[in-house]
Amino acid sequence: MAGAVEKLVELKNRLLEVSDLEGASAVLAWDQSTYMPSGGASARGRQMATLMCLAQEKFTDAAVGQLLDDLQPYVASLPDDHDDAALIRATQRRYQRDTQVPPAFIANLYEHASQTYQIWAEARPANDFKRVQPYLERTLDLSRQMAEFYTGYEHIADPLIGLADYGMKASSVRRVFAELRSQLVPLVETITAQPLADDTCLKQNFSEHEQLAFGRKVIERFGYDFNSGRQDKTHHPFMTKLGSGDVRITTRVKENSFAEAFFSTTHEAGHALYEQGVNPTYAGTPLDGGTSNGVHESQSRTWENLVSRSRGFWEHYYPELQHAFPAQFKSVSLDTFYRAINKVQRSLIRTEADEVTYNLHVMIRFELELQMLEGQLAVKDLPEAWHAAYQADLGIRAPNDINGCMQDVHWYGGHIGGVFQAYTLGNILSAQFFSEAVKAQPAIPSEIAQGQFASLHAWLKENIYQHGSKYTAPELIERVTGRGLDIDPYMQYLRSKYGELYQL
Amino acid sequence: MAGAVEKLVELKNRLLEVSDLEGASAVLAWDQSTYMPSGGASARGRQMATLMCLAQEKFTDAAVGQLLDDLQPYVASLPDDHDDAALIRATQRRYQRDTQVPPAFIANLYEHASQTYQIWAEARPANDFKRVQPYLERTLDLSRQMAEFYTGYEHIADPLIGLADYGMKASSVRRVFAELRSQLVPLVETITAQPLADDTCLKQNFSEHEQLAFGRKVIERFGYDFNSGRQDKTHHPFMTKLGSGDVRITTRVKENSFAEAFFSTTHEAGHALYEQGVNPTYAGTPLDGGTSNGVHESQSRTWENLVSRSRGFWEHYYPELQHAFPAQFKSVSLDTFYRAINKVQRSLIRTEADEVTYNLHVMIRFELELQMLEGQLAVKDLPEAWHAAYQADLGIRAPNDINGCMQDVHWYGGHIGGVFQAYTLGNILSAQFFSEAVKAQPAIPSEIAQGQFASLHAWLKENIYQHGSKYTAPELIERVTGRGLDIDPYMQYLRSKYGELYQL
Repeated sequence: MAGAVEKLVELKNRLLEVSDLEGASAVLAWDQSTYMPSGGASARGRQMATLMCLAQEKFTDAAVGQLLDDLQPYVASLPDDHDDAALIRATQRRYQRDTQVPPAFIANLYEHASQTYQIWAEARPANDFKRVQPYLERTLDLSRQMAEFYTGYEHIADPLIGLADYGMKASSVRRVFAELRSQLVPLVETITAQPLADDTCLKQNFSEHEQLAFGRKVIERFGYDFNSGRQDKTHHPFMTKLGSGDVRITTRVKENSFAEAFFSTTHEAGHALYEQGVNPTYAGTPLDGGTSNGVHESQSRTWENLVSRSRGFWEHYYPELQHAFPAQFKSVSLDTFYRAINKVQRSLIRTEADEVTYNLHVMIRFELELQMLEGQLAVKDLPEAWHAAYQADLGIRAPNDINGCMQDVHWYGGHIGGVFQAYTLGNILSAQFFSEAVKAQPAIPSEIAQGQFASLHAWLKENIYQHGSKYTAPELIERVTGRGLDIDPYMQYLRSKYGELYQL
Repeated sequence: MAGAVEKLVELKNRLLEVSDLEGASAVLAWDQSTYMPSGGASARGRQMATLMCLAQEKFTDAAVGQLLDDLQPYVASLPDDHDDAALIRATQRRYQRDTQVPPAFIANLYEHASQTYQIWAEARPANDFKRVQPYLERTLDLSRQMAEFYTGYEHIADPLIGLADYGMKASSVRRVFAELRSQLVPLVETITAQPLADDTCLKQNFSEHEQLAFGRKVIERFGYDFNSGRQDKTHHPFMTKLGSGDVRITTRVKENSFAEAFFSTTHEAGHALYEQGVNPTYAGTPLDGGTSNGVHESQSRTWENLVSRSRGFWEHYYPELQHAFPAQFKSVSLDTFYRAINKVQRSLIRTEADEVTYNLHVMIRFELELQMLEGQLAVKDLPEAWHAAYQADLGIRAPNDINGCMQDVHWYGGHIGGVFQAYTLGNILSAQFFSEAVKAQPAIPSEIAQGQFASLHAWLKENIYQHGSKYTAPELIERVTGRGLDIDPYMQYLRSKYGELYQL
């Protein structure tokens, strides 16, 4: 292995430069979504495109390919589980993937996405789909072009799904979704046949300042480190890693609703705990970050739902919440509050949907993405197709596009395809991982009921977070749970929790 | 001129990429000084270094030199005043300058400066000069190295002074400073022989929110466009251009002092008005930005001092201020307030110094810089040399280094040399330009007294702002005032204003 050490150092230096450019781009994107004045939009889009194009150029440099080739004997000499082997493998996977797309194309896509985001942010409150339609048409074109750079796919969405969730494709997602759907729909029907839970206690006036303070206190207890992160406000909450030691979250606050800011805070904090927990020696390499969108989402949903929508969590925190908002909650019982935050209903907005109906929202988007990519659905017909799908699957119709096909930022700030399946994969995985955690550490539920999260956080860090992208999603799932993706723990969790709530 | 158009387009494309990298770096620096959590510091320093190194590499690419050479016949065919000719000349100046310094050196310097800034931000409140000393020693080394890349200088500080203030060098600055000093010192002595003005009215409690609101209202009237900018809080106020259409300012607020936030706001707004006023067709080129530090500072001082510390300004705004802070100012007369905001005293902090003594603070720093660069003053002896200079020139001594040599960020966030002269050059130029403005538009003073700034803003935009870096500082001064740098209008301004205030 003469020279392997030097070559690895050179590879890491090159990867570090790429990671710096990507981190810089993340800073620009964060600023664009939080503080940037509108006048900055056009230069910002171009700046981000320039950075991503350079990152892509530098990553796909032939010298990187050569280093990867040269390092193959070194990889072969290492145990499979060695960090260097994992780094080289992960870099190779990404290299093979990224060399298929020209950097100038990526730059175009980013610049277009950045423009489209600005238009969407203005057009959405005005319910003006027509205004954003030509931009979205171009996005669809670019998305198809992007997919076409990858050869040998079965479905045109497969390359895009694979970018987000390694190992998955349209057919496998459709299979999982069909199975889940067949079990979910009867559950939704049984529950929604009952009277709606009363959630008026959540629809009072809650000062922004107090809401943010309460949320921050909770996520600090989860283990989110504010010395290596911060929380700001935005239109559409997200988590972003700006560099190792700088993992930020955003939220939005509605003063007339308690649920919005609080659950988006615990959700994004879940993403952030994953990123903050990655082995710090992976900084500046492709290993430094969650392994797939689905696994990432499993962690946001773990902390949002399995923890902070659980009965145990509120046994500890409800008195504190009552103390923070005495006028609002003094005379509301824990039972009433718990039912309110887990109210199941056929609703219009994905991000506000309950756990039981949530996946139906995702499935609608996933199918619409596939249809657009297949060329079966034109962008101009998207608003009506959206309404029709909601009517069919959830029995309701939005009065406008604000709460229809313009509600989610994703298509308007990136590409179309492979974007939504991760939400449901994440829900499934959250329960699959959590049940393993509880098997290993049976005290976790009772600790949560005492406002203690150290055992859960430590188990997740040990088994998932620290590994970053060392293992692919299928490898990690197998490693942690001893089997592949499995909807049973998730359905069990829903049946048990909602069975109790609705005395099924 | 066959091909000149294509070559110019190629040059502009290359310059645009450089400008995007510099703009991105400005976003990172802005974030570092406003919102970045401490954990982000080390990655951030590296990211900024990577960006600046790439910008430098791309700008100094031999292809840029070739394009500049190829474009010489085109330049020769154009009128001197043509924008293309100016662009090519400005690019050539910068190219000749920047090709002398290796990109890797620039990257080192930026990364070191970024680390040093973090250390300073922690060490300063702890009055711990020892902690920052080794960093500053390295900064001095790097500053000397940087100067040495440029050949043929008379004084080692000359290249660094020239970077900031084209056309100036140590000997010419020393000459101007000596002349100014000989007139300032007697004025300071005459004024400080009188009883101190009473400024207790400024030292009451002023809510942060109200202070910021008042400042924002004023600078909006100046013409600062919040759609293309914003204001945030920081340790050490600055203005920064993040891209065309995004020119931000920062301030710091002391609730026990009215002057801090307000005058730093009008000061930084002055810088921002200059940048917001540059001809938008210069975006993404070396013409897009103020032409020198001294000329830039002339604009911040115009709006901070000549406008917002003038009697006329407060004839209009004092009633509004009294309305915003009735408890504090209801029973304070305009005369008392005006004397308070123009209190002359021998003080420790440059940024809080009055107009009359301010330049003595600058001269101390300028001489200390020269001595450090000359090797006559070791960094370890800087604290004491600072105290000795203040004792000699201002008759006072700081009780610590917080208010001594650690008060200004400059040496701790960049290099040593060429950093401070611009403040005094700016003061001189502010009066020189302003007197021309009033000559051209005699109504300006009476308009200011009615809270109207349109004539002044329009004159400055027409004569200075729009040109960006089209003219070098000496060219611009000559063009606007018909002569070179001249201290007479500044001394006249001081003598007239303070003669009236102190009945001299």
